[in-house]
Amino acid sequence: MSTAPLSAGRYDGLIVGASLATLDAAQGYGEIADAALAWRDGRIAHIGPRSALGADPASLAATVIEADGWITPGLVDCHTHLVFAGDRAREFELRLQGASYEEIARAGGGIVSSVRATRAADEAELLRQSLPRARALLADGATTLEIKSGYGLDFDNERKMLRVARAVGDTLGVQVRTTYLAAHALPPEYAGRADDYIDAVCEWMPRLHAEGLIDAVDAFCEGIGFSPEQTRRVFEAARALGLPVKLHADQLSDLGGAALAASFDGLSADHVEHTSLDSVRAMAAHGTVAVLLPGAFHVLRETKLPPLDAFREHGVAMAVATDCNPGTSPLLSMRQAMQLSCTHFRLTPEEALRGATVHAARALGLADRGVLRVGARADFVQWRIGHPSELCYWLGGGLAQRVFAGGRLLVDTVD
Amino acid sequence: MSTAPLSAGRYDGLIVGASLATLDAAQGYGEIADAALAWRDGRIAHIGPRSALGADPASLAATVIEADGWITPGLVDCHTHLVFAGDRAREFELRLQGASYEEIARAGGGIVSSVRATRAADEAELLRQSLPRARALLADGATTLEIKSGYGLDFDNERKMLRVARAVGDTLGVQVRTTYLAAHALPPEYAGRADDYIDAVCEWMPRLHAEGLIDAVDAFCEGIGFSPEQTRRVFEAARALGLPVKLHADQLSDLGGAALAASFDGLSADHVEHTSLDSVRAMAAHGTVAVLLPGAFHVLRETKLPPLDAFREHGVAMAVATDCNPGTSPLLSMRQAMQLSCTHFRLTPEEALRGATVHAARALGLADRGVLRVGARADFVQWRIGHPSELCYWLGGGLAQRVFAGGRLLVDTVD
Ligand SMILES: [Zn+2]
Ligand SMILES: [Zn+2]
Repeated sequence: MSTAPLSAGRYDGLIVGASLATLDAAQGYGEIADAALAWRDGRIAHIGPRSALGADPASLAATVIEADGWITPGLVDCHTHLVFAGDRAREFELRLQGASYEEIARAGGGIVSSVRATRAADEAELLRQSLPRARALLADGATTLEIKSGYGLDFDNERKMLRVARAVGDTLGVQVRTTYLAAHALPPEYAGRADDYIDAVCEWMPRLHAEGLIDAVDAFCEGIGFSPEQTRRVFEAARALGLPVKLHADQLSDLGGAALAASFDGLSADHVEHTSLDSVRAMAAHGTVAVLLPGAFHVLRETKLPPLDAFREHGVAMAVATDCNPGTSPLLSMRQAMQLSCTHFRLTPEEALRGATVHAARALGLADRGVLRVGARADFVQWRIGHPSELCYWLGGGLAQRVFAGGRLLVDTVD
Repeated sequence: MSTAPLSAGRYDGLIVGASLATLDAAQGYGEIADAALAWRDGRIAHIGPRSALGADPASLAATVIEADGWITPGLVDCHTHLVFAGDRAREFELRLQGASYEEIARAGGGIVSSVRATRAADEAELLRQSLPRARALLADGATTLEIKSGYGLDFDNERKMLRVARAVGDTLGVQVRTTYLAAHALPPEYAGRADDYIDAVCEWMPRLHAEGLIDAVDAFCEGIGFSPEQTRRVFEAARALGLPVKLHADQLSDLGGAALAASFDGLSADHVEHTSLDSVRAMAAHGTVAVLLPGAFHVLRETKLPPLDAFREHGVAMAVATDCNPGTSPLLSMRQAMQLSCTHFRLTPEEALRGATVHAARALGLADRGVLRVGARADFVQWRIGHPSELCYWLGGGLAQRVFAGGRLLVDTVD
């Protein structure tokens, strides 16, 4: 907490009256009731009880907001595939009408259909289709979004996706972290030549990195994806460029993916339903975050739970993300992901909130957000709630009253 | 479809360009592409393809809206408890922290806490707390809401709840149907005297009905609620007043509740997870709708599915509702209920949409809505979607662009 003396007009903005959930300690919400939170130059500049302001709030900042409810750190969606064209709602319907996966594939469904539609869309069209999804996440409190490539699967189209991901951030004022996931699926033109495709993925990486389009590198390590050995080659290419890695690991089977990610000091291993105790230990040793994706678990009606108690016991930080994607997780709300993490994974609301903020930031290698603390980015949300547990309790509805990112008011709703 | 000749200015409003899902047949969405829908005096006055309008739209109505996406009937939430004070988010949190039901009860949780808070709130406060929930449902496309009493459990407080339910409708312009559910739980002052309480419930009923506060009568028939014999007494009191009945039936066990409701020509039997084949046959014979409540199923992590195939086979109409309530289903979105009905109950998106419209209207005894048809109420929603299956596919986000009830534009959002 800032203890520096306060002088008139020293802040860009000040919000008073709400309770804060600072999350600025290992345990508990870090509540400050009837609080004052001030920011300057996009950073939090003061946090404390309103009573300690010691001056008329109006004298301290040009913008002073009288608020109620609760303020939390802005939510961080650390795993999305939200840039894509088309949707797969018809496939969802066919499945519920009893169609088999084969029939759906024959009807042009599956990831191939997203690849086809994404390749066919130009940058403007891809941005136009992706923006509403990002806006929905923002309206529900997300101020940082990770966005993966992986429906382009060739140089030009992976590049297009990453450029659109950057454009989403520029357009909306949210922070976007891009992840290069060309090793998401084998494109049809490389059928039977997965190793050749991995060569290409590794060859495209430095070129896209040189354009500033890659913040991290990811792969889909799975029986129906790429092998641990192929994943290792992608990770070695990333390491050569100094890029951090993360991994779609152990979702459907245990190939040791989480341990592989950890061995590269991976930021995160994501899904991790089938992760072994040995891999949990490796994640703990390397500080690799477990990113839980309850949306896909829900939609696929999975039953194998991630090793949650082992994560807790070994001190592996758990993040929660939407996995927003057209096939297995058409999820447009971080609160919804938090709710599903409580219902399906039995996370406590506090674990879910940490998972959606401070742990999610860590899964992106970002130390400057996810908590309310002097010096952190002024990313925060004022919610119409009486207690933070409500963020996980209600399904649906609009609880975010005001959303600030870098001190800028991006969402402001009235009842 | 209207085939009457069109003349200038004959409609109050006209919306053109969107596709319609009329649901005006036993099967299929009833699609009309690039359609025109007109209304007058709160009723739908014309439906057809835009090309058949035969005149400049601007000459036909004062208000002409050029739209895209899809228009469906306004959603009907046929089972809610949305009037209550307080919430039970802390109880939700305690449960996830490992507290037993006993510990929660000792900490003042459970339905008793909702009764206590609801009794303590005056009408204005109860309305203030309930309106945001109704607004959330409306913003997501609901134009008719059923609202039950049942947290008052004495004459004055049941009356207060029903009056607030009416006030919700008056305030927001949505249609509200009130259901008298004094037989929801045994109030503490009647502990050990359930039969005496049922006497009181039956005695209050005509007095509240005389005030115009009751559209239907409901009870909670369950081992932890009221017995079939007590339920029968409530139903007989309703029958004496000419009031239709519905029932919380067979949620946790099979007490034959659905068959009991059917034997009173009940509008609906709700929950119905444990309903027997005999009861299904009784429902079919009496036209009693099965109201599915996947929110409570989700939150309680139930595993016993309603007899869905038997409902289909015997032609029992299935409705879908939020069951919006603070204990087991804090659900603020009909789309969310539809999504959960697809994921948990494997309804098709078309079944879920019928369940949220035409079948839900039937569960309220309303024949004038739930379809797009000339003469029906002008309750409809224009959605930002490319196909109706998207209503069940996306989780979260705001898909409703415009919501009309009785020809009045109640919600209008822009991207
Ligand atoms: Zn993913
Ligand atoms: Zn209920």
